[in-house]
Amino acid sequence: MVAFDQISPVDPAPDAREGRASDPVFVLHEGGKMEIAATVALNGPDELSLAYTPGVAEVCTAIAEDPSIYPDYTWTANTVAVITDGTAVLGLGDIGPRAAMPVMEGKAVLFKQFAGIDGIPICLDTTDTEEIIETIIRMAPSFGGINLEDISAPRCFEIEERLKQALDIPVFHDDQHGTAVVTLAALENAMKLTGKYHDTVRIVVSGAGAAGVAVTRILLAAGYRDIAVLDRSGVLHRDRADMNASKRSLAADTADTTGRWGSLAAVMEGADVYIGLSGGSVPEDVVASMADEAIIFGLANPTPEVHPDLAHKYARVVATGRSDFPNQINNVLAFPGIFRGAFDVRATAITEGMKLAAAQALAAIVSDELREDYIIPSPFDPRVGPTVAAAVAEAARRDGVARR
Amino acid sequence: MVAFDQISPVDPAPDAREGRASDPVFVLHEGGKMEIAATVALNGPDELSLAYTPGVAEVCTAIAEDPSIYPDYTWTANTVAVITDGTAVLGLGDIGPRAAMPVMEGKAVLFKQFAGIDGIPICLDTTDTEEIIETIIRMAPSFGGINLEDISAPRCFEIEERLKQALDIPVFHDDQHGTAVVTLAALENAMKLTGKYHDTVRIVVSGAGAAGVAVTRILLAAGYRDIAVLDRSGVLHRDRADMNASKRSLAADTADTTGRWGSLAAVMEGADVYIGLSGGSVPEDVVASMADEAIIFGLANPTPEVHPDLAHKYARVVATGRSDFPNQINNVLAFPGIFRGAFDVRATAITEGMKLAAAQALAAIVSDELREDYIIPSPFDPRVGPTVAAAVAEAARRDGVARR
Repeated sequence: MVAFDQISPVDPAPDAREGRASDPVFVLHEGGKMEIAATVALNGPDELSLAYTPGVAEVCTAIAEDPSIYPDYTWTANTVAVITDGTAVLGLGDIGPRAAMPVMEGKAVLFKQFAGIDGIPICLDTTDTEEIIETIIRMAPSFGGINLEDISAPRCFEIEERLKQALDIPVFHDDQHGTAVVTLAALENAMKLTGKYHDTVRIVVSGAGAAGVAVTRILLAAGYRDIAVLDRSGVLHRDRADMNASKRSLAADTADTTGRWGSLAAVMEGADVYIGLSGGSVPEDVVASMADEAIIFGLANPTPEVHPDLAHKYARVVATGRSDFPNQINNVLAFPGIFRGAFDVRATAITEGMKLAAAQALAAIVSDELREDYIIPSPFDPRVGPTVAAAVAEAARRDGVARR
Repeated sequence: MVAFDQISPVDPAPDAREGRASDPVFVLHEGGKMEIAATVALNGPDELSLAYTPGVAEVCTAIAEDPSIYPDYTWTANTVAVITDGTAVLGLGDIGPRAAMPVMEGKAVLFKQFAGIDGIPICLDTTDTEEIIETIIRMAPSFGGINLEDISAPRCFEIEERLKQALDIPVFHDDQHGTAVVTLAALENAMKLTGKYHDTVRIVVSGAGAAGVAVTRILLAAGYRDIAVLDRSGVLHRDRADMNASKRSLAADTADTTGRWGSLAAVMEGADVYIGLSGGSVPEDVVASMADEAIIFGLANPTPEVHPDLAHKYARVVATGRSDFPNQINNVLAFPGIFRGAFDVRATAITEGMKLAAAQALAAIVSDELREDYIIPSPFDPRVGPTVAAAVAEAARRDGVARR
């Protein structure tokens, strides 16, 4: 589920084209995965005259006179555009807008399934930051929220930030914040099990793309103090000349503050927590050098940075992005409930407080049954969506972004 | 149904705001008129792994390798974006993108009801021609077709033309061509009743906006020769200095050719056909001056240019845009079947031949039962959609725009 932008591509089978007719994945995808359904009856002239002309003109006129009723009489208040430019799709990378559509449809179906939200997949035929921003702003009246998806870093940071400034509806880049919320929830529960302290626990975040940046930011907001963030060239810190603005800013709040930097092996020695958001593989001797009661989250899909079998030799708590191991860090635990909560109170934005509340609510769901192989609920746990939504709605009110 | 850009606005009741809770129109519109529905099951991890990660990556990869399969494995091939800028909504005029949404939702619901097509309402927050064009081009990979709606003339002409050039999917401005197709169908049947001849019948088209231009163009394409088109300043002809490019071009093919121009009263004297697409009211003495066996289509909603009671005093065949009189010229007779036919053969465009075929098919539906008060079928006649679709698909193949 978690969609990172640096994990290794899945190799297509050479006979993919020939085998599609008998491949259950392709059979399921024939004709796509979603449709439009009317929620009003249109079986004769009387119903037509209410839902369309002449009746509809009354509703149009009322909205023109009082735009605040727009969400009451259109489907928009329950809709989220799932928007991509196809540049960082799953582990496949920059495959373009059309090849990205099956993922966007899947996301839209998940929004409906887990939160009753109407997701509308939009794949943009441009990768230019300014064009993406202006295009989304122009179509924004059509939607109640914007879920950015699979847009590569660092463009995704500016696109989200500028859209948040320009629009008065929730804007949320799921690859960043969905991953961050679920990772924080899982880590909070792992911390309870190990008895480590927020202000002294040593964390290594491998990956400084969309997910790495957002995970680090939410960890800082949640009170974690000692974090080293790595990209392909090592730990981000002020002495490096090769960093973009988002990495410089992240370095200032992590290694520049702790003074702890160097290679992966250097920062892993004695570290309490490893969070892999980068793909690649951590050598066993490096894993072995971590502190006692270590926590290892290898979140790359399909190949975790540390395989669970190896991780369990040296760590107390292990999580992955995969559904076939315990403790799956899966964005679907977060984004449906976050948008549901935001929509329920007609929030004008998704604040840091709402994301932290979502993580806390998610962690609390398993609190009574907490154990090493159950630090995060299943996506199919029916408590997840409503619990996250309620916490997010309450946080929206607290943060002053609720419109009702 | 027919949405013209010059008809008079509906006055909102002064107590509209207070009365919404008990007004059936507003009650029906609460929460909007449509939703997204999944067409695949997502009840557990196994289904999730087919419809989403990791399974979906196979489909993405296959599309990236062979973009021609894109329509086969996404919902896009059955989707049409119903796009407006809110500048010419029903008779309400330039009410903006949000106030236009109830009409776009209604249109989307009609697409589903009458053709099984998934309509996605998009209301754009710009009225700039270039911005509208580039925005639609950028989002076009998301859709199988583009239905432009309620965009004011003359911008609508350039927007449609440029999009047709830029995109290889059907682009159709319904206010132009939907109206034109249904009007031609009705006129063809009225001509049969009256025994008038295409090359000598004298036609007056009142209105040179989106609908007036398109109706005139399709009449010319169908073999009608003697047409006078009027805007607010009288008949379009070469001696006028106040015409935009679309009006100059239209004049060249109408009054400039026939040499027949002047006031409405002047061209109506002895005219066989009046087609009102402008609103306003035609004086009785002007109606009375028409030829014997006259045909009067007063299509403004809710007030026809010639009320049917008056029209019947002087004409043999009378049609309106209203559902409460016989012979309703209703765009819903055309656009669902036209897009259905285009989608069924994966047409790259909607050609003039496809529009003419739609009109002929629509006219033929009533041929056996043709009479003065039944020149066009009911929108709820179940033969309409499939008959129009089949004719359009066949015309697409003939015109070389079918991809299958």
